[in-house]
Amino acid sequence: MTTIQDIKTLLETYFRPVELIGPGDTVITGPAKIEEAGAGQVSFVANEKYFRFLDEAHASLLIVHSDAPVSSNDGGRSFLKVKDPYTAFVFVLQRFAGTRQVAAAGIAHSACVASTATLGRNVSIGEHAIIGERCVVGDDTIIGPNAVLMHDVTVGNGCTLYPQVTCYDGTLIGNRVIIHSGTVIGADGFGFAPQQDGSYIKIPQMGTVEIEDDVEIGANTTIDRATMGRTLISRGAKIDNLVQIAHNCQIGNDTVIAAQAGISGSVRIGRQCLIGGQAGFAGHLELADRTSVAAKAGISKSVTQPGQAIRGVPAQPMREQLRQEALVRGLGAMKQKLDELESQLRDLRRQDT
Amino acid sequence: MTTIQDIKTLLETYFRPVELIGPGDTVITGPAKIEEAGAGQVSFVANEKYFRFLDEAHASLLIVHSDAPVSSNDGGRSFLKVKDPYTAFVFVLQRFAGTRQVAAAGIAHSACVASTATLGRNVSIGEHAIIGERCVVGDDTIIGPNAVLMHDVTVGNGCTLYPQVTCYDGTLIGNRVIIHSGTVIGADGFGFAPQQDGSYIKIPQMGTVEIEDDVEIGANTTIDRATMGRTLISRGAKIDNLVQIAHNCQIGNDTVIAAQAGISGSVRIGRQCLIGGQAGFAGHLELADRTSVAAKAGISKSVTQPGQAIRGVPAQPMREQLRQEALVRGLGAMKQKLDELESQLRDLRRQDT
Amino acid sequence: MTTIQDIKTLLETYFRPVELIGPGDTVITGPAKIEEAGAGQVSFVANEKYFRFLDEAHASLLIVHSDAPVSSNDGGRSFLKVKDPYTAFVFVLQRFAGTRQVAAAGIAHSACVASTATLGRNVSIGEHAIIGERCVVGDDTIIGPNAVLMHDVTVGNGCTLYPQVTCYDGTLIGNRVIIHSGTVIGADGFGFAPQQDGSYIKIPQMGTVEIEDDVEIGANTTIDRATMGRTLISRGAKIDNLVQIAHNCQIGNDTVIAAQAGISGSVRIGRQCLIGGQAGFAGHLELADRTSVAAKAGISKSVTQPGQAIRGVPAQPMREQLRQEALVRGLGAMKQKLDELESQLRDLRRQDT
Repeated sequence: MTTIQDIKTLLETYFRPVELIGPGDTVITGPAKIEEAGAGQVSFVANEKYFRFLDEAHASLLIVHSDAPVSSNDGGRSFLKVKDPYTAFVFVLQRFAGTRQVAAAGIAHSACVASTATLGRNVSIGEHAIIGERCVVGDDTIIGPNAVLMHDVTVGNGCTLYPQVTCYDGTLIGNRVIIHSGTVIGADGFGFAPQQDGSYIKIPQMGTVEIEDDVEIGANTTIDRATMGRTLISRGAKIDNLVQIAHNCQIGNDTVIAAQAGISGSVRIGRQCLIGGQAGFAGHLELADRTSVAAKAGISKSVTQPGQAIRGVPAQPMREQLRQEALVRGLGAMKQKLDELESQLRDLRRQDT
Repeated sequence: MTTIQDIKTLLETYFRPVELIGPGDTVITGPAKIEEAGAGQVSFVANEKYFRFLDEAHASLLIVHSDAPVSSNDGGRSFLKVKDPYTAFVFVLQRFAGTRQVAAAGIAHSACVASTATLGRNVSIGEHAIIGERCVVGDDTIIGPNAVLMHDVTVGNGCTLYPQVTCYDGTLIGNRVIIHSGTVIGADGFGFAPQQDGSYIKIPQMGTVEIEDDVEIGANTTIDRATMGRTLISRGAKIDNLVQIAHNCQIGNDTVIAAQAGISGSVRIGRQCLIGGQAGFAGHLELADRTSVAAKAGISKSVTQPGQAIRGVPAQPMREQLRQEALVRGLGAMKQKLDELESQLRDLRRQDT
Repeated sequence: MTTIQDIKTLLETYFRPVELIGPGDTVITGPAKIEEAGAGQVSFVANEKYFRFLDEAHASLLIVHSDAPVSSNDGGRSFLKVKDPYTAFVFVLQRFAGTRQVAAAGIAHSACVASTATLGRNVSIGEHAIIGERCVVGDDTIIGPNAVLMHDVTVGNGCTLYPQVTCYDGTLIGNRVIIHSGTVIGADGFGFAPQQDGSYIKIPQMGTVEIEDDVEIGANTTIDRATMGRTLISRGAKIDNLVQIAHNCQIGNDTVIAAQAGISGSVRIGRQCLIGGQAGFAGHLELADRTSVAAKAGISKSVTQPGQAIRGVPAQPMREQLRQEALVRGLGAMKQKLDELESQLRDLRRQDT
C-alpha cells in the first residue's frame, strides 16, 4: 500500500525539495494519464501548456512543477511540487510497474548452452534459447526464450535480451543493455565487389559489433557487423524499432535514433544526437555532437558544427529548409506575380513603340 | 472435381444474379492470372480497361462484370457475369486454395505450455512454441512453431500466429486475427526522460496492446505497448510488413496500412483510412475517417475533415500538392521568363534614359 | 602461416599478372583497413584518390593498382600490383576469414525434421530448427538454429539460412543462397478485396517465392509470396536488411537492393540495377536493366530506357532532378529578383504617367 507521503519520500531520494500541498495520507493505487486518472491515482503535469488540465483533473495526486499555480485549498486533491515533474513521474511509474518475467530464473530445461560457455551468477536462460560455444553471459542477465547467441558472444551484467533476439558470432555487449525481440545484431555487412560480368563477389565481413553499457535497442532492428574492425553503439544510445545500422557505423553516447531510420556504412554519429524516424544517411558521413535530424531527412553530407538542427532531402540547416519550404508553398503566388509583370511590361512596351 | 456449374453455384451463395454464358459442364482445375490462364483454368476481368484482354484470354472460364460485352457465341469459353467480379474471383481462389499447415493439430511435443495457461478446443501449438503463464488461447487457434507468447497473453478464437511471432506480456488479441512471422507485438514503447547530463532514464512501459477481431498483420512488423493504457488496433484493420506502430497509437476499423509505414506515438487514425507505403506520421496527430495518405507522405499535422487524400512532405491535400509539384517542375521555364523580363526591362529603362 | 609470396600465389589463381615489389618472405598475420594496418598486416589501395595514404601506411603489404606509383626502394614494405586491387583484397580477406559455425555438422538433437523431408549429404540442421513435411534440403546446406521451414520448402546445395529465418510453405530456393536472421520468405501478399461496408475480404495468396542461385538476402527482410504464380528473385541478386518485396515482384539478375527499400506488388526490376536505401516503388512498374535508383527515391512510373540514373520523389532522370533541386535552392534569389523587377516596373510606369 502506497500513500502520497510514501511517494514524497520516494521522490526525495532523487530531488530536493519536494513540496507537498494537501493531505499526505491518501492511498495511491497506481499512475494514469492526466485525462484518464481518477480517485486513488497519481498523474503529472510537466508543461505549462497543460496547466489548463489541472482544474478538471480527477487524480488524487498530481506531480507538478515548482512554479505551478496550485494551492492547498483544493477539494481533496494533493500536489507534489518538484523541479522536474516528468522525471519524477518516471520514478513513480517504476514504483508501480509490475514485474515482467522474460524467462524464469535459472537455465530452462530446453535451452541449449554450450559446454564451453561461461554463465555468471543469477542468470536466466529462457526455453529453447541457444548459447553458443565460448559465449560469456554476465551476472543477473536474462536471455529470453528462443533467443540465439552464436559462438563467441559476450553479454555483460544486468542485460535483458528478449525472445527471438539473434546475436551473430563475436558480438560484444556491455552491461544493462536491453534488446527487444526480433532484433539481429552482427549479421554480415552489405559488401560485394562488382565483377566485369555484372555479378558480385561477397566481401567477407570479418569485424564485429560492440554495444556499450546502458544501450537500449528496439524490436526488429538490424545492426550489421563491420567488414574489418567494429560497428560501435556507444554508451547510453537508444535505438528504436526497425532501424538499420550498417557495417562500421559508430553511434555516439546518449544518441537517440527513432524508428525506421537507416544509417549507411561507416557513418559516424556524435554524442547526444537526435535522429528522427525514417531519416536516412548516405555512407561515410560524420554528424557532429548534439545534431538534431528531422524525421524523413536525407543526409547526404557531413555536419561538422555541433548542435545544429537539420531537415529535408537533401538535409540542410532547419532555418534554410523551412524558408525553402515556404518559398515552394509560395510558388503559385510568385508565378501569378510574374505573369502580371509580364503583362504590364507588354503594355509598357506597346506604349513605347 | 469442379465444373463451371459448381462455380456458378458457389458464387450464387454470395451474389445474385450470376449469369452463365456458354457451357457449364467444363471441368475447372484452378485459377490463374488472365495473361497466363489456359484451358481448364478460371480467371477474371474486373475492370473495363482490361476488356481488351478478353479476346486473347485462353481461360475456359472468365468471371466478368454484368456489363461486360461478352456473348454466347464464343468458341468453347464460358463466362460468369456478376456485379463484383473481383470479389467473386476471391471466392473462387478460396475454393481452390490448398490447405496450409502452420502447425499440426494438438500440442507439439517440444512446445512449452505453462501449467497456468488455458487452451480452448481444437488448438494447434507448433514445435518449440512457448505459451507463458496465465495465457489464454481460444478455440481453433493455431500458434506456429517457435512463436512466443510471454505471460498473460490472451488470443481469441480462430486466430493464426505464424512461426516466430512474439507477443509480450499482457497482449490482448481478438478473434480471427492473423499475424505473420517475425512480427513483435507489445515491445516497450520508445520512451526516455532526458537528464541534465545528456543521458536518459527509461520510462516504464506499463500499458498493453489490444488487437480486435479480424485484423491481419504482416511479417516483421512492430506494434509497441502503451506507456499507460493501450495501443489499439481496431476491428478489421490490415497492416502490411515492416510497419512501425508506436506506443499509445489507435488505428481505426478497417484501416489499411501499407509496408514500411511508420506511425509515431499517440497518433489516432480513423476508420477506413488508406495509409501508403513508407508514409510517416509525427506524434500525437489525429487522422479523420477515410483519409487516404499517399506513399512516402510525411504527415506533420492532424487531418480533421474526413475523406480527404493527402500527399507530400509535409503532407497537404492532394490537389494542392500536385499543383505545387507541377509548379516545381515548371521552375526552369519560370526562371527563363524572369530572365527575359529582366532583359526587356533593362532595354526599356535604357530607352527611357 | 602466410607469407607475402603465399598471397601472391593465391592472387595468381585469379589474376595475371601479379607483380611483387619488395621482399616476399615477410609473414602476414591478417588484413586491416589502411589507416589501421600495422606491421605484419596487409591492406589495399584501390582508388587513385587514396594514393596519398600510401606514404603513411604502416602495413607490411599493400595491394595496389598496376599503375600505382610505388617502387622497390621502400623501407621494408612490399607491394602487389594487380589490375583489380579491390577484388584481390576480397580474396585475401577470404584467405584470413575465420570459420563461422552457424550450426554444428549433422542434425541437432532438438531439431524437428519431418519424416517426409529429404536431406542431402553433409547437411547441418541447428538446434530447434524445424524442417516441415516434404521439404528438400540440398547437399552442404546449413539451416541455422531456430529457423523454420514450413512444408514443401526446397533449399538447394551449399546454402546458409541463419538462425530465425522463416520460409513459408512452397518456397523454392536455389544453390549457394545466403539468408540472414529474421528474414521471412513467402508470407502472404497484402491483398484484400474491399466490400461495400468498408471491410475487406482476404484474397488467398496461392503463389510461391522462388529464389535463384547465388542470391544473398539480409536480416529482417520480407519477401511475400505471389497471389498466383511466383515472386521471383533472380540469380545473383543481393538484397540488404529490412527490405520489403511484395507479391508477384520480379527482381533481375545481379540487381542490388539497399536497406529499407520497398518494392510494391507486381513490380518488375531488370538486371544489374542498383536500388538505393529507403527507395520506394509504386505497384505494377517496370524498371529497365542497369537502372540506378538513388536513395529515398519514390518511383511512380516505369523506366523503359536501360542504364539511366533516377532520383527524387517522384523520381525522374538524375540530371533533371538535380537541376530542379538547384532551382528550388535558388528560389530565394529568384523571389528577390522578381520583387526588384516589380519595383523597377512600378517606377517606370510612374514615369510614364
